[in-house]
Amino acid sequence: MQAPPKESGRDEKSQAAEKMNDDDDDDDETRRRRRNPGLAVVVVHGGAWAIPDDLAEASMAGVKGAAVRAHELLSRGGGSALDAVEVAVKALEDDAAFDAGLRCRHSPSLALCHGSVLTEAGEVEMDALMMDGRTLRLGSVSCVQGVANPVSLARAVMEKTEHAMLTAAGAARFAEALGVARVPQRELVTEAARSEWERYRRYRHAVRALFSSERVHDTVGAVALDARGDVACATSTGGITNKMPGRVGDSPIVGCGGYADNAVGAVSTTGHGESIMKVTLARLILFHMEAGKSPDEATTLALSHMRDRVGGHGGAVVLGRDGRWGARCSTERMAWAAVAAGSLYYGLQPGEVHIEPLQ
Amino acid sequence: MQAPPKESGRDEKSQAAEKMNDDDDDDDETRRRRRNPGLAVVVVHGGAWAIPDDLAEASMAGVKGAAVRAHELLSRGGGSALDAVEVAVKALEDDAAFDAGLRCRHSPSLALCHGSVLTEAGEVEMDALMMDGRTLRLGSVSCVQGVANPVSLARAVMEKTEHAMLTAAGAARFAEALGVARVPQRELVTEAARSEWERYRRYRHAVRALFSSERVHDTVGAVALDARGDVACATSTGGITNKMPGRVGDSPIVGCGGYADNAVGAVSTTGHGESIMKVTLARLILFHMEAGKSPDEATTLALSHMRDRVGGHGGAVVLGRDGRWGARCSTERMAWAAVAAGSLYYGLQPGEVHIEPLQ
Repeated sequence: MQAPPKESGRDEKSQAAEKMNDDDDDDDETRRRRRNPGLAVVVVHGGAWAIPDDLAEASMAGVKGAAVRAHELLSRGGGSALDAVEVAVKALEDDAAFDAGLRCRHSPSLALCHGSVLTEAGEVEMDALMMDGRTLRLGSVSCVQGVANPVSLARAVMEKTEHAMLTAAGAARFAEALGVARVPQRELVTEAARSEWERYRRYRHAVRALFSSERVHDTVGAVALDARGDVACATSTGGITNKMPGRVGDSPIVGCGGYADNAVGAVSTTGHGESIMKVTLARLILFHMEAGKSPDEATTLALSHMRDRVGGHGGAVVLGRDGRWGARCSTERMAWAAVAAGSLYYGLQPGEVHIEPLQ
Repeated sequence: MQAPPKESGRDEKSQAAEKMNDDDDDDDETRRRRRNPGLAVVVVHGGAWAIPDDLAEASMAGVKGAAVRAHELLSRGGGSALDAVEVAVKALEDDAAFDAGLRCRHSPSLALCHGSVLTEAGEVEMDALMMDGRTLRLGSVSCVQGVANPVSLARAVMEKTEHAMLTAAGAARFAEALGVARVPQRELVTEAARSEWERYRRYRHAVRALFSSERVHDTVGAVALDARGDVACATSTGGITNKMPGRVGDSPIVGCGGYADNAVGAVSTTGHGESIMKVTLARLILFHMEAGKSPDEATTLALSHMRDRVGGHGGAVVLGRDGRWGARCSTERMAWAAVAAGSLYYGLQPGEVHIEPLQ
């Protein structure tokens, strides 16, 4: 279904937000949520970059499916915001249309798909972050190899250690201690990812070429608000083709790849990792929201700052504690989907909003 | 010299700040700095924790020496803010009184000193961050082994790669490619660090014990403002004794262990890494400064938030683009020193400010 023009989409969102936000008293709002878990909201993204046409359909199907699945867990399964963002991001990690985690054998359309990308050394290194808005606890893994679902490992760091972030061999050792199955690299890499690596490794400045050109395989992420009024975020990525071994981007970095705080809301970002790190994009968006901006306004301001100050592009899905949400990018495309107030929203181009009633 | 009571110290600082800040016009301010490089400011810290008496003297000597050396580079050597924070942090990394980098053979007082601490597996893993306030470019290394000066490796990541952060074996491989001498672990570890490790490894919850008790060996860091009006920050650490292998704390994380932006100022933090990450402490302090707070007010607000929201303690050295600066902690002690407006300032206990004329 083609969406109505952007303004109508935004109006419908605003109405839904107003409906949820007709009382400024936090306690009343929280009580109403407890009575009506249908107010739960999930927003997911599948990466902000110049998604080529041959990946667009699979990307949209992926984000829509992930958002619906996570929302079902919230609305019918009694799941928490943390459960919802984990389920959404795992679904995207398992989908070869996206550059994060993944078991290729599950992909229905391998020929079109990519999976996690390869470093200069031809290896897969993955990053992920999860954050709990109730306590500000976070779990993060960087440069981890051999796991299918880095987001779940990030959650285990948060819930089962005294630490917030584990990297490289230490993260892999932790996964092993947990009994997480080790996935051989061949299952984490598609033929398409290997061809792309072969193509780009010939260039001395492949990284720069990638960032400024059409094929950046980026990140997946999700934010959720549950019936208890708790928010959470999760982000996961395989990074960029031909990155240096050991390169860590924004995704696992708290305040950059994501942030969640019940007092404000939750954000998951995507785009040029090094630019996102320079402006701590997720935290910047939430600071604008703390200063009274809506999720859309806050995201637009922060993305403009990133473009103007450091020449970087990206996108974010954003959720306020009041249920208002936004999905914006300064790249050519970002696949995103949201489930809120009984409808499924989704889009690919900037300003494009499709709306369908939830099944 | 015993300092005057806190309020006098603060007054003197305020007067110096006012002197530097008597014109709100940025261009005029920048022009005046160009004419008078003596307005350059450096503030360094040697970690916020319950520094035991037997380390206090060495810690104070270390931070004072590092601040003076970095300021000389700024005021007489024509160095940049980046050069100054690198020189200061290298001086502290090379000093066995502090838990960061270090070549023990250079320490004058090994029996009292610690050096980088050991992970559960008995190894040294170090983290460092540097950030350039002109461009927001940053370089960071996490979980790096076998280098004496992680801060210089972080600077090389910033200046010689397309990336912002390298971790573990990838970071070590990058150091090797640069020709950085590999330092054997025995030179990175003092006898005291090994005894401490032996003592703590017997405890199942050693990390928790450490955080809540007296002996956290933390971080070193510096912020600087140079004659061109540019700011920079650097932070370096060996982390906490008996951390899990691969644990990454706040120090190398942009917005947590440090942040620098010519439009606002620069911060380097120290303390309980996982708490600092939860609140993105460095970025939070600068957000308060953007909202009009002084460095002292902004730091106090952010440290209070960290204590109230997540029960965490720490400290920070903070510098505004106008030359106003602060050094505050919510821990029992933080060794810090500053050179500004012709004087050397330093302190150890909260509220303690000693002032000496610069030699």
